[in-house]
Amino acid sequence: MASSSPFNVPDLIRKKRDGGEHSHAELEGLILGYTRGEVPDYQISAWLMAVYLRGMTPQETADLTLVMAGSGDQLDLGDLPRTVDKHSTGGVGDKTSLILTPMLSALGLTVAKMSGRGLAHTGGTIDKLESFPGWTPELSEERFLAQAREIGLALVGQSRDLAPADGKLYALRDVTATVDCLPLIASSIMSKKLASGAHTVVLDVKVGAGAFMQTLEDGRALARAMVDIGTRAGRQVRAVLTDMDAPLGHMAGNSLEVQEALDTLRGTGPEDLTELCVALAVEVLAAAGEDEGEAAARARATLHDGSALEKFRAFVAAQGGDPALVDEPGHLDVAPGRSDITAPAAGFVGRIDALGVGRAVLALGGGRERKGEAIDHGVGVELLKKPGEAVDRGEAVLRLYHRDGRGLDTARRLLEDGLSIVDTAPAPEKLILDRVN
Amino acid sequence: MASSSPFNVPDLIRKKRDGGEHSHAELEGLILGYTRGEVPDYQISAWLMAVYLRGMTPQETADLTLVMAGSGDQLDLGDLPRTVDKHSTGGVGDKTSLILTPMLSALGLTVAKMSGRGLAHTGGTIDKLESFPGWTPELSEERFLAQAREIGLALVGQSRDLAPADGKLYALRDVTATVDCLPLIASSIMSKKLASGAHTVVLDVKVGAGAFMQTLEDGRALARAMVDIGTRAGRQVRAVLTDMDAPLGHMAGNSLEVQEALDTLRGTGPEDLTELCVALAVEVLAAAGEDEGEAAARARATLHDGSALEKFRAFVAAQGGDPALVDEPGHLDVAPGRSDITAPAAGFVGRIDALGVGRAVLALGGGRERKGEAIDHGVGVELLKKPGEAVDRGEAVLRLYHRDGRGLDTARRLLEDGLSIVDTAPAPEKLILDRVN
Repeated sequence: MASSSPFNVPDLIRKKRDGGEHSHAELEGLILGYTRGEVPDYQISAWLMAVYLRGMTPQETADLTLVMAGSGDQLDLGDLPRTVDKHSTGGVGDKTSLILTPMLSALGLTVAKMSGRGLAHTGGTIDKLESFPGWTPELSEERFLAQAREIGLALVGQSRDLAPADGKLYALRDVTATVDCLPLIASSIMSKKLASGAHTVVLDVKVGAGAFMQTLEDGRALARAMVDIGTRAGRQVRAVLTDMDAPLGHMAGNSLEVQEALDTLRGTGPEDLTELCVALAVEVLAAAGEDEGEAAARARATLHDGSALEKFRAFVAAQGGDPALVDEPGHLDVAPGRSDITAPAAGFVGRIDALGVGRAVLALGGGRERKGEAIDHGVGVELLKKPGEAVDRGEAVLRLYHRDGRGLDTARRLLEDGLSIVDTAPAPEKLILDRVN
Repeated sequence: MASSSPFNVPDLIRKKRDGGEHSHAELEGLILGYTRGEVPDYQISAWLMAVYLRGMTPQETADLTLVMAGSGDQLDLGDLPRTVDKHSTGGVGDKTSLILTPMLSALGLTVAKMSGRGLAHTGGTIDKLESFPGWTPELSEERFLAQAREIGLALVGQSRDLAPADGKLYALRDVTATVDCLPLIASSIMSKKLASGAHTVVLDVKVGAGAFMQTLEDGRALARAMVDIGTRAGRQVRAVLTDMDAPLGHMAGNSLEVQEALDTLRGTGPEDLTELCVALAVEVLAAAGEDEGEAAARARATLHDGSALEKFRAFVAAQGGDPALVDEPGHLDVAPGRSDITAPAAGFVGRIDALGVGRAVLALGGGRERKGEAIDHGVGVELLKKPGEAVDRGEAVLRLYHRDGRGLDTARRLLEDGLSIVDTAPAPEKLILDRVN
């Protein structure tokens, strides 16, 4: 049980165990040694538990993030003007990136972004875009950068070599009860953002029963930690805290969400989704140094003057998709099977559990349990009613889009368990809970 | 990174991480799963760090010890009358076992004991006994038990299968900064004692700069934890806390210590060593239910009436050694080289660092750096003066017994660094600091 790291690893573990603060060089010794396979799992897991129970200072957290970001390839966007990136801490029915990125591009900013695929109940932007037959997330770096320069919008799948330390650490945290630790969560997210190269980053931190951060206080702490990391790394980072007790908009499922995103880009989307996209755009504009007073109006205008939709059309075409589908969203493949869930009594929709909706989409075949699994882009769930709306007894509240009944029973059960009908209208919940910058 | 344990290991780690208390079944799942190779190192090291920082209740510590004791073979001494065992937490020049075990045997108790070999600066009883040419620590279990029944004294090397969980956990703790943790230290020591089968156990807990436990308070806490484990496991356990700032007696090194032990068994040994052996014997007698008032006198008598020496002679002969050497200790092999360390000024001996003496013996070839290395039984260090004694300038304080000068320079430097001569006589230090039962 020896290690060839230049540091004495047990000494570093002991330091954190006793509440000490690591230097950048010490973190580099530990994390890069681990990434190279020189420091073994069993030492890093002991160290992770010490971090979990002893915490990290803001400077340590920023240093850890920089070390992780530097553990593999880093995208150099230095040539591109006003680069921006966006990250969400994971939501159900979250098609925000589909709308926000063309908005930002229409506002004169450059989005050259890496996105992930969905896993378990959480959807991924790449999966949603693959609802356009022919659209590909695989671009050479050269083509990716050229497209970003030309259109202001390019989106590729996450490269394997981006912050490999994060992937290795996350797999270890997952099996050693060290996942829900603020500095580790913040550094994990930010390491990929820093390695992705954008100068300005806006973070959508989800708060609620189904989210990583279950309370507003926890969400605020995570947002502050990530903004602090970004600032220490010389980036402009802002965060918006949003409620995720219910899914955003009305649609969950890949093609269904694309249709809803296209509606929103046309200015006719659901109010909550539209407002969140505008709010995130405002943060980006403010972070990029523009006048905050006019930012909301300018962001909203891109949804009404066709400029965001135009960017999206050019983006889909540039990556191999059929731009005609952007204007004919009804032609996107949607599964033909329909099955509704009705209100068992008259009243108001109380709660629609976002996690349950995400799991229902997964059961229908619209998500994957394991990396690499194929998915059905056409299945999904529609919220015919949103929380707070009145319903009659027997009125349809949720609609399932299924393929030949696959997973339908499980999906129905998940949705029924997550639905409550209440006697009095619940107070409307705020979508945007706070902002951190 | 999956495990085939029936328990969800991350859930168990999470429980300890959050300060929860494990059941016996949970500890069994973790520790036996680890011993069988079903639970990986990296999960146990995270758990060990959680134990380090969150602690364990007395019941958890006892349960952990029982699980470790049950992880391999357990000696069944059930047939033997009044079995006793002794453990020391590690000392320099500690030849106590050589004297105490025949004393106990002469007092009518049965010692059927497993002992270890020395490592680094700490000597081992097996190594000392091997100063008798032909003496072997390898006995079949049958012969071991028969000898214990006949003579009341048998001593074998530690079996590989005794508490294998402890060996595996210790190796992992050693490289993950989780060694100096009270419940883990206590359970490690006691697991081997419980698996060794004796009903009564006396513990010599060393306290001081060179010991595992550096303060009396820490030593007391360890002693209490071990006594508590023993009591919960249905054994009689008592502990004596002893000072180990200076080596016990005058000799360090295998043959030299055997000579000193033989002097002590003849009633002419150094006072500190004699007193410690008597004190430990008193604890054993008291734990075994005998009258404490007469215990000290009875124990001391075995050193003057020849009964302890007679037991030792029979024991050496039964395990293949030459009993004539017991009566002619001058014939034991002692290295011929001599080199003295003298007082640089007149005054009083202030401190003789026990750790430095242990390391000097190691440098001379009398100990091993790694398991399995051969050692020179004849080399060692003699304390011509003990702390508190007056010395003239240039008077010899320490004598090195070396073989052709091997390691002499290093050994001299270690001893010189650990020796202080002071102007006023230091207050005599108590050897026995406290007792715990």
